[in-house]
Amino acid sequence: MLSPEDNEILTRIGRGTPMGELMRRFWIPGLMEEEVAEPDGAPVKLRLLGEDLVAFRDTDGRVGVLDAHCPHRKVNLFFGRNEECGLRCVYHGWKFDVDGNCVDMPSEPEATNFARKVTTTACLTSVRGGVVWIYMGPKDAIPELPQFEWSYLPADRTAAIKRLQQCNWAQAVEGGIDSSHISFLHANLGDAGRGNFNLKRESFALSDRHPKFFLADTDCGIQIGARREAEGGQYYWRITQALLPFYTMIPPTMEDGTSSDGIPFGGHAWVPIDDENTWTWSFGVHPGRPFTAEEAEWTGGRNGTWGPIDENYRPLRNKDNKYLIDRERQREMSFTGIEGVPNQDAAVQESMGPIVDRSREWLGASDSAIIAWRKKILGLAKDLQNGQPPTMAANGAAYNRRSCSVMMDAETDWIEGAEPLVHGGPIPNAAE
Amino acid sequence: MLSPEDNEILTRIGRGTPMGELMRRFWIPGLMEEEVAEPDGAPVKLRLLGEDLVAFRDTDGRVGVLDAHCPHRKVNLFFGRNEECGLRCVYHGWKFDVDGNCVDMPSEPEATNFARKVTTTACLTSVRGGVVWIYMGPKDAIPELPQFEWSYLPADRTAAIKRLQQCNWAQAVEGGIDSSHISFLHANLGDAGRGNFNLKRESFALSDRHPKFFLADTDCGIQIGARREAEGGQYYWRITQALLPFYTMIPPTMEDGTSSDGIPFGGHAWVPIDDENTWTWSFGVHPGRPFTAEEAEWTGGRNGTWGPIDENYRPLRNKDNKYLIDRERQREMSFTGIEGVPNQDAAVQESMGPIVDRSREWLGASDSAIIAWRKKILGLAKDLQNGQPPTMAANGAAYNRRSCSVMMDAETDWIEGAEPLVHGGPIPNAAE
Amino acid sequence: MLSPEDNEILTRIGRGTPMGELMRRFWIPGLMEEEVAEPDGAPVKLRLLGEDLVAFRDTDGRVGVLDAHCPHRKVNLFFGRNEECGLRCVYHGWKFDVDGNCVDMPSEPEATNFARKVTTTACLTSVRGGVVWIYMGPKDAIPELPQFEWSYLPADRTAAIKRLQQCNWAQAVEGGIDSSHISFLHANLGDAGRGNFNLKRESFALSDRHPKFFLADTDCGIQIGARREAEGGQYYWRITQALLPFYTMIPPTMEDGTSSDGIPFGGHAWVPIDDENTWTWSFGVHPGRPFTAEEAEWTGGRNGTWGPIDENYRPLRNKDNKYLIDRERQREMSFTGIEGVPNQDAAVQESMGPIVDRSREWLGASDSAIIAWRKKILGLAKDLQNGQPPTMAANGAAYNRRSCSVMMDAETDWIEGAEPLVHGGPIPNAAE
Repeated sequence: MLSPEDNEILTRIGRGTPMGELMRRFWIPGLMEEEVAEPDGAPVKLRLLGEDLVAFRDTDGRVGVLDAHCPHRKVNLFFGRNEECGLRCVYHGWKFDVDGNCVDMPSEPEATNFARKVTTTACLTSVRGGVVWIYMGPKDAIPELPQFEWSYLPADRTAAIKRLQQCNWAQAVEGGIDSSHISFLHANLGDAGRGNFNLKRESFALSDRHPKFFLADTDCGIQIGARREAEGGQYYWRITQALLPFYTMIPPTMEDGTSSDGIPFGGHAWVPIDDENTWTWSFGVHPGRPFTAEEAEWTGGRNGTWGPIDENYRPLRNKDNKYLIDRERQREMSFTGIEGVPNQDAAVQESMGPIVDRSREWLGASDSAIIAWRKKILGLAKDLQNGQPPTMAANGAAYNRRSCSVMMDAETDWIEGAEPLVHGGPIPNAAE
Repeated sequence: MLSPEDNEILTRIGRGTPMGELMRRFWIPGLMEEEVAEPDGAPVKLRLLGEDLVAFRDTDGRVGVLDAHCPHRKVNLFFGRNEECGLRCVYHGWKFDVDGNCVDMPSEPEATNFARKVTTTACLTSVRGGVVWIYMGPKDAIPELPQFEWSYLPADRTAAIKRLQQCNWAQAVEGGIDSSHISFLHANLGDAGRGNFNLKRESFALSDRHPKFFLADTDCGIQIGARREAEGGQYYWRITQALLPFYTMIPPTMEDGTSSDGIPFGGHAWVPIDDENTWTWSFGVHPGRPFTAEEAEWTGGRNGTWGPIDENYRPLRNKDNKYLIDRERQREMSFTGIEGVPNQDAAVQESMGPIVDRSREWLGASDSAIIAWRKKILGLAKDLQNGQPPTMAANGAAYNRRSCSVMMDAETDWIEGAEPLVHGGPIPNAAE
Repeated sequence: MLSPEDNEILTRIGRGTPMGELMRRFWIPGLMEEEVAEPDGAPVKLRLLGEDLVAFRDTDGRVGVLDAHCPHRKVNLFFGRNEECGLRCVYHGWKFDVDGNCVDMPSEPEATNFARKVTTTACLTSVRGGVVWIYMGPKDAIPELPQFEWSYLPADRTAAIKRLQQCNWAQAVEGGIDSSHISFLHANLGDAGRGNFNLKRESFALSDRHPKFFLADTDCGIQIGARREAEGGQYYWRITQALLPFYTMIPPTMEDGTSSDGIPFGGHAWVPIDDENTWTWSFGVHPGRPFTAEEAEWTGGRNGTWGPIDENYRPLRNKDNKYLIDRERQREMSFTGIEGVPNQDAAVQESMGPIVDRSREWLGASDSAIIAWRKKILGLAKDLQNGQPPTMAANGAAYNRRSCSVMMDAETDWIEGAEPLVHGGPIPNAAE
């Protein structure tokens, strides 16, 4: 459990809040590149960290993300004209470029040079791996882009998709680093119950349902080892990465190095829209070869493993329709009666309420990774309040990590034993 | 009128409020038995007194009503598995029995005995007359079940149905004890206007539309006499029971002892869902013989006298569609143009707003019963704050009362004259 | 920009607020006469200045506007019976006339004379030009009706229509007095772009897009001159009237003295429903002759220049459907891609948010009329707080003004030059 005060610090992400300021020190996944596919295409509404923004791709292909409201009289630039390297407000024709400069102001006499004094808030942007990354923080503390394989490897080997989650970001992240729930929430029943667990060693997640947790700091967060009893004096380890502020990695679980849902290396980001809504990003990367078309759709499409989602990236199974829970299937086939791993996660996480009251929890040994993560990120937020920015924001290379699942014997040190598996491959063009 | 402070006390029913604590000292009608008809059936969401709960019938047929949120990480148990005498959370498999004990905790090592320390909030339940009664108060002050005939008589002689009312509970109760409105709200017009008043003596409700009110305390509330001028030196009395905290009885008005809507003895409970929503319960009982199938549907069905209501117990005529008011009918046929006595009541009560501002009322002599009821229940709430629990909560037999309508001459004392009519018949198995 | 404190004063219009009290010193357009067309017809819900009201036309044809809630127990009189010169509450039959007197109270004994003590809040009303005007202020300070031509001229020469606007009243008024936005928001593009500008001199609104502003006080507000460079040493002047508290006049722009949308003299009122919603009234008047049927529909119909609007006076193009913006048209044809001048205005004004934060604006020379208007109306509100009521409220004749557009040479004083054009014609029956 957490004190009500710490729960407030953990969950509130508006400008000026401790956690909001911490997040503004990092690059964050902002929107899908496909949302601003066309130069001079229609502007897009965007809400992130409680701020209303507008995104557009200019004539030269650069992506701008500006304060949604024109600095003049606060009209929403979503209605604006995206034309000739700038977004023009339709009320009085003021025009801004991707850097926030006012490049035309026809409603004022030129002699006053008023345009040259006016600017609007503009985020930094960088397009990588199908994602527009944005930076909303102070311009004198620009961080490095996190060197995820799914951001830097060639486009045909990466995939990204987002979906709306209707709850606070932190309870979503906590689901991502909670290795013990896979024995339950995502399990199937009886003979039919092998669906999600196709590998011999995966079955240990069902035979030992209370893993012992081990934790180790990394340069960008925490490495979490969940150790389960296996056969012949062996342990089955699921080793996951929690990368701050809001990333996790999915351990591959199949013999061919992919995970049970067919993604070789995958992960998530939970990016706050506001205090009560979150974009759940899912990424995938095939370091060794291009995805097939089918794999690409499965990994990053609207109707793949993270879908189905509608044209606004809202899941078709959602809290309004109770995730289309099928009580008959729940009795006979699956633990939840809800189809799809991401929908199962969303159902339980959203059902806690928009912001879960952590002061009323009753935590056990299985929650030790979550407890460690909370402590770590609260510490970073408080450090920043005291003038110490997060070191990992300036260390993009630290994010080139992988999760893994592995069999180890009792004598092997878990960190040393996993060491060859937890680092990503070489990052092309990382210096860019 | 009431002071703003007293209006707050009267209307707010959350945990810790004076009225909320008072209500938690009584058994209350919680849900329809049909909602948890099946052992091991789907759990049901329930909101009462501002608290989110979940109800289920276990393998042995016992009904459990638990805090909706699992004590572990606050997932809603509505998504849970109802299996083998307990409700299991789908997140980490914690399982609770109807008494709130954690009977299985597979995500934690058995050695820690953690499960044995964990409990969740469980209400007491009792199923009677088609209704799951629940008790949400302190376990060291368990009250008696109120001995209503419609709860204790054989199932084929009783009926119960609920419908959603979108306003505070207290303005709904006040409608139930307001004997003077029947001359108006439920009246028909002209020749067609005899609809609701089929009995000779009922017509006095139209000929004398400002009854004189008389009040007498009972062991469980107030007996209210509304005296109207009749013929030949006689008075027409409607004598109703207000039973605390939120019950009323409908006076039978027909010569055969039934009321004009065909129910021999009927009554209501207005149970707070939260401060701004209420379950309006309607009960009926035929002490002398079983209901016919048609009578049972009329008295307790979704399309009977209290309907029509939808599958979620919401009336089809409701505030969103203005109760399908028919202005033509209002001009020609009925006082309101709204069909159905319960819909007429809901229309006026809901139109006051979610919580009526009683500090701005202008009360008359016709409101004297309402004034007395407010004073009585506010007194009980304040007494409890001062350490004195309500005596009637421990006196189930006190609730075995009936309303009546009766002709009396001027010499007869109204309490003595009505005495043979205001007590219910023998209660079978009352000691259970 | 405005201080946050002044922005609060400017925008909040509930009873007891400085601006709310100021508005209650004026007659205001309350509802369309057609909404209460029939004597003894159905009552109508009405919300104005944050108060819930009910309007009805009584048997004698008088229009009453009362507090929505019966003073007895606060039932909404919308459900009431409009019968025999009064509106009767359906709960207990209390009946009120258009002046707010309780004229019948059948639920109380006559002897108590209780009815004679009870009154309800009634507004003054006056029906003119298809509009029910109402006065909600103190009865000892009744103002004069503003002598608009569209209110006083014969019915066949006037037109009025309202439409819902989903934002605060003040940002709507500011759009009405903002002469510079017409060069942008309402402009068309390229060859197709002549649509809204059919007159030679109108084209100067496109050739000079940063007019110079001149201001002059009038007896009821501000006269605003927007001067644009034309040809041959001439200036093109658009001279508009801001009449307090919330009126503007549309300058006619065509050679025949009508405006480009075919209305000879037109104007607007922005009447607060509550802090975040506004009725946008549009008026038109043809002083010289009756409207043709087609002109009448165009000027005051639901599908005319101010439409299309639905049966509840909500525009079909609205914020929920993004005003049906057509990005293709925006690229090729019109500045906004939104059809219809009023929809273009609504789009930008509503997009600022329910109440725009004026403390974050960045105003230029083109905003000088808006700055002057804010100063003027804030001054009136503060004067009233200090005991000085607004003088123009008592001076109905001061409102008989017109806007105009005119060519003037450099030597002509703008006020003198426009003087023959800014006064309305004779007002028949003004003394009534």
